[in-house]
Amino acid sequence: MKRIGVFTSGGDSPGMNACIRAVVRAAVYHGIEVYGIHRGYKGMVKGEIYKMDSHSVSNIIQKGGTILRSARSREFMTPEGRKLAYEQLQEHGIEGLIAIGGDGTFTGANIFFEEYGIPTVGAPGTIDNDLYGTDYTIGYDTAVNTALDAIDKIRDTADSHDRVFFIEVMGRDSGYIAIPCAIGGGAEIVMIPETETSIDYVVDTLRTGWNRSKTSFIVIVAEGDDAGNATEVAAKVQQELPHMDARVTILGHVQRGGSPTAADRMLASQMGVACVEGLLQGRKCEMAGIINKELVYTPFIDTITKDKLINPQYVRLVDILSV
Amino acid sequence: MKRIGVFTSGGDSPGMNACIRAVVRAAVYHGIEVYGIHRGYKGMVKGEIYKMDSHSVSNIIQKGGTILRSARSREFMTPEGRKLAYEQLQEHGIEGLIAIGGDGTFTGANIFFEEYGIPTVGAPGTIDNDLYGTDYTIGYDTAVNTALDAIDKIRDTADSHDRVFFIEVMGRDSGYIAIPCAIGGGAEIVMIPETETSIDYVVDTLRTGWNRSKTSFIVIVAEGDDAGNATEVAAKVQQELPHMDARVTILGHVQRGGSPTAADRMLASQMGVACVEGLLQGRKCEMAGIINKELVYTPFIDTITKDKLINPQYVRLVDILSV
Amino acid sequence: MKRIGVFTSGGDSPGMNACIRAVVRAAVYHGIEVYGIHRGYKGMVKGEIYKMDSHSVSNIIQKGGTILRSARSREFMTPEGRKLAYEQLQEHGIEGLIAIGGDGTFTGANIFFEEYGIPTVGAPGTIDNDLYGTDYTIGYDTAVNTALDAIDKIRDTADSHDRVFFIEVMGRDSGYIAIPCAIGGGAEIVMIPETETSIDYVVDTLRTGWNRSKTSFIVIVAEGDDAGNATEVAAKVQQELPHMDARVTILGHVQRGGSPTAADRMLASQMGVACVEGLLQGRKCEMAGIINKELVYTPFIDTITKDKLINPQYVRLVDILSV
Amino acid sequence: MKRIGVFTSGGDSPGMNACIRAVVRAAVYHGIEVYGIHRGYKGMVKGEIYKMDSHSVSNIIQKGGTILRSARSREFMTPEGRKLAYEQLQEHGIEGLIAIGGDGTFTGANIFFEEYGIPTVGAPGTIDNDLYGTDYTIGYDTAVNTALDAIDKIRDTADSHDRVFFIEVMGRDSGYIAIPCAIGGGAEIVMIPETETSIDYVVDTLRTGWNRSKTSFIVIVAEGDDAGNATEVAAKVQQELPHMDARVTILGHVQRGGSPTAADRMLASQMGVACVEGLLQGRKCEMAGIINKELVYTPFIDTITKDKLINPQYVRLVDILSV
Repeated sequence: MKRIGVFTSGGDSPGMNACIRAVVRAAVYHGIEVYGIHRGYKGMVKGEIYKMDSHSVSNIIQKGGTILRSARSREFMTPEGRKLAYEQLQEHGIEGLIAIGGDGTFTGANIFFEEYGIPTVGAPGTIDNDLYGTDYTIGYDTAVNTALDAIDKIRDTADSHDRVFFIEVMGRDSGYIAIPCAIGGGAEIVMIPETETSIDYVVDTLRTGWNRSKTSFIVIVAEGDDAGNATEVAAKVQQELPHMDARVTILGHVQRGGSPTAADRMLASQMGVACVEGLLQGRKCEMAGIINKELVYTPFIDTITKDKLINPQYVRLVDILSV
Repeated sequence: MKRIGVFTSGGDSPGMNACIRAVVRAAVYHGIEVYGIHRGYKGMVKGEIYKMDSHSVSNIIQKGGTILRSARSREFMTPEGRKLAYEQLQEHGIEGLIAIGGDGTFTGANIFFEEYGIPTVGAPGTIDNDLYGTDYTIGYDTAVNTALDAIDKIRDTADSHDRVFFIEVMGRDSGYIAIPCAIGGGAEIVMIPETETSIDYVVDTLRTGWNRSKTSFIVIVAEGDDAGNATEVAAKVQQELPHMDARVTILGHVQRGGSPTAADRMLASQMGVACVEGLLQGRKCEMAGIINKELVYTPFIDTITKDKLINPQYVRLVDILSV
Repeated sequence: MKRIGVFTSGGDSPGMNACIRAVVRAAVYHGIEVYGIHRGYKGMVKGEIYKMDSHSVSNIIQKGGTILRSARSREFMTPEGRKLAYEQLQEHGIEGLIAIGGDGTFTGANIFFEEYGIPTVGAPGTIDNDLYGTDYTIGYDTAVNTALDAIDKIRDTADSHDRVFFIEVMGRDSGYIAIPCAIGGGAEIVMIPETETSIDYVVDTLRTGWNRSKTSFIVIVAEGDDAGNATEVAAKVQQELPHMDARVTILGHVQRGGSPTAADRMLASQMGVACVEGLLQGRKCEMAGIINKELVYTPFIDTITKDKLINPQYVRLVDILSV
Repeated sequence: MKRIGVFTSGGDSPGMNACIRAVVRAAVYHGIEVYGIHRGYKGMVKGEIYKMDSHSVSNIIQKGGTILRSARSREFMTPEGRKLAYEQLQEHGIEGLIAIGGDGTFTGANIFFEEYGIPTVGAPGTIDNDLYGTDYTIGYDTAVNTALDAIDKIRDTADSHDRVFFIEVMGRDSGYIAIPCAIGGGAEIVMIPETETSIDYVVDTLRTGWNRSKTSFIVIVAEGDDAGNATEVAAKVQQELPHMDARVTILGHVQRGGSPTAADRMLASQMGVACVEGLLQGRKCEMAGIINKELVYTPFIDTITKDKLINPQYVRLVDILSV
């Protein structure tokens, strides 16, 4: 393999740039050429493909977002679109791909390999940490710290005013972001998709605390929780506890940005090198990951179909710590 | 004057603790006693009044929120409530008050003085910076930096995805928070109550930028803007520009919390000392402030009734800088 | 066991307060009493022992330092001192201890158990991450992020001026802090005690980079490196490369403070609960830790005598990434 | 005037990029061409001069350092060097200059104008805030907040261990950085060049505090103080108070970097526009500045020769607040 392409796809996450940098530098280190494909599959179809070298990735390790940009591509979902993408890669002499993204990204890469035989190795780039095949995904640690920093600020004002704050954090269908936010943010309650938390339970917990003369509370609501989003949960609770001063904050897209933490830069750097070396070893349709401090490669199909369970001890921890 | 009371009232703001600390230390320095009144006028009515000394305010200068807490008091709005408050102060031998808060707080203090002759000197404690009588209010600089930090993070993801972000910041009826967020955040448009910004203008500006192949935009919307809140503005704009990927973020209560910046600690410290020394000079119903680097005292009535105008040059600056 | 004591000892680290909080809350949760011992063994000898409850640890999870303080105790190193300590514990009815600290702390606890049969369970509290028996120690992640944040700032000025910065980070005899600082900070060279890095190698690497028209460099020096501290290394290098503008920064005690990161709050919270539950299970002279996501208890003697090796791949990573 | 050049010179400061951006955008706004001169006078002599447009300064407002880089130039100090610089400007058709820097930069610009008639308007870019002609310089607010953030972290560990920390901050011959660090950092003592602080005073203050059972202290030492640097001061004090556990931290170059604060971005943006508009108005050898919220232009000669005095009230404030 003499020439590879790298792209980011799906929602951006902090550390994607650190990973791009590692891909480029590892390629240079191993004496192969590397091209950046802009806007993911969209740019692959359109031929937004540019040569990169060591200098192209100077001073980006600390930057949020992705210099290669990301986009959704309807065209790539069609056979015609993938044909165009293949022709673009052929034209640039690209023999292998490195995809930084999540399960949607890897699904596309799997189909592309079946049709055209272009091997892809993936790096887990998503803030949600919901990918099977790695303990952590690139951007997760940063997103959690960003959310936690916001929660610390909100607690200042919650404490000063005897208020109940319902804070909604990201995480798609998982509670991976919500759990450390709740434990680290000193929250009284956490509501995640993996467990059922009834409105009654929330009301009882707040009422019990109130009766023990606790006057400010924080409830962390994962965006995918079955009980509804933070606004809905707050409205239902407020109906039962009208004397409480309830407020809602939806942290939103702030969680996707920011300079990556040390852990995310480390993970992204390792993953970038592992992707290049994986391709050189002849891997295809596999995602690099770290499990128990060891580098592992997991077939894309497993990262897409298998669930990564959350440690049930963590919910118990929230209960103990809010005693 | 031998004994004074200090309280915080209204919305909390970063630096209130630094101001409380300065009040207490200045009182000790000048040999008078100081009592902390918890939960503002509410606690004054109820007698939540505790002696403080130099040690009570150790290690709080860097903390958000207010250790004296804040609350709204319906009772203090009634003659009976104020009578109770007066009796509580009498009982504790408190001869003068220091109020850290905004115009609502000072209105109460004015009435209280007319009825019972208890002098109050105020410190401007609000993130909104909308108080006449001081260049800056305590908490304003921190709130702006907190908002700006969030905007920086959002821009990472806006740039990576070719999106238009409508970001709503606080500020009540003024654009004081919105303006530096727009200039410092590299926004294309700022919408503030002080000027009229039509939806047509927003649509035209975005369309013009788009046609010049600019693909990501940030619009800062002050919460008090006449065109509506960020969600409403975004919906109206999206109707005209359906091809744009528009997102809304409401920064919310995060802006009230956090460790105060250097400027807020400086201001809060100066104000706390100025309040104590003002009371000792026999001032009453006046707010301390800094105008053009000089300490000034302004009658409460002026801080309540007079407007502090925003520099019109700032809106022009947004236009120039987004060329 | 009905009553336990908790203390912090050795150098403080961010997350110690989160751990104290978890110890206290877990004790309350399990229906046992908990006493805080101030200033570690020093306060144990002197009887600085105070009852704690759930409220004692409110709003401390986000604070750096330790509310129980820390100190060195010469007295506890003597049999007489330990006798006094034992008498103090007897007097307060304390049957078991939880020690948050490092190997020095655990050495003391081992001797104390042999002499007086008081069981201690430990939590790994040190920024250095050099304790066998846990993947990470409490405070390590925060210290690394604090150092990295400083390095990011220094790189701004290094890049602007074509300078070589020698930055010294903490870590005692290990390179655990230095490695992620180098990888995450985009450093060209890392010097750690675990590997030999000759001055010649440093000089050659800088000269080679310079000849490829690279003009700013960052060298991370672990405080325990054999080649000397950052000032000494810089002086030796400067002798060989007099045309380079070399600067030294010693990050120092900043690395010990600050609000703990999410990872440190999670770890500290888990460790606090694990210490209490370990004591209740009858454990003695063991440190709680997390290895490969599992809770483990390791005999103090192993944490003291066994080495935790650094992953040799990491040094290779620095080389690849600085290509 | 149809074409201007912009450069940064002297020590870099956060906000220089925001200022460069404003210069470029204001030039575009006013329909004139703008060239970036790299490495200050050094690059002017060598002809490192490149055309810039609105896009050249995208996404730099939040970055520390200077994209135009900075350097010292011995050549420009000679008539021959300035001749070369003039020829380079002639060759590029540059009729006016905008210099972002400090008094050294402006001295050079003055001589250059006398010799060759090229007008320069300057923006105050230095963290030291020691320039006459403006209330604040670009980078000052960020440097103070960076230092304060470090001091907050150090206080965590000072409090936990009963230590005296001597912290050295930057500021050249002025105490502008030291003062808000001391007031905002809750320091007991501040040592600045503008006032004399004897070692005896330091010793007495610490001893008095110690006798009142205060056990941790922070002393802020401005780098230009007459009593010596922090290491020397600490050594002298330690000799008198050998029982105290004294530590020294020199904050160093961290203070020059980092993302600029809101205030610095506002100031830098205003200054950049003011420089362009000043040149267009026919100004020469003047520095733009903000005094009492008003834009003012001050002759370079005054910024170089006149002193900006520090408010003596501030030192009194440190005394009151450490009661």
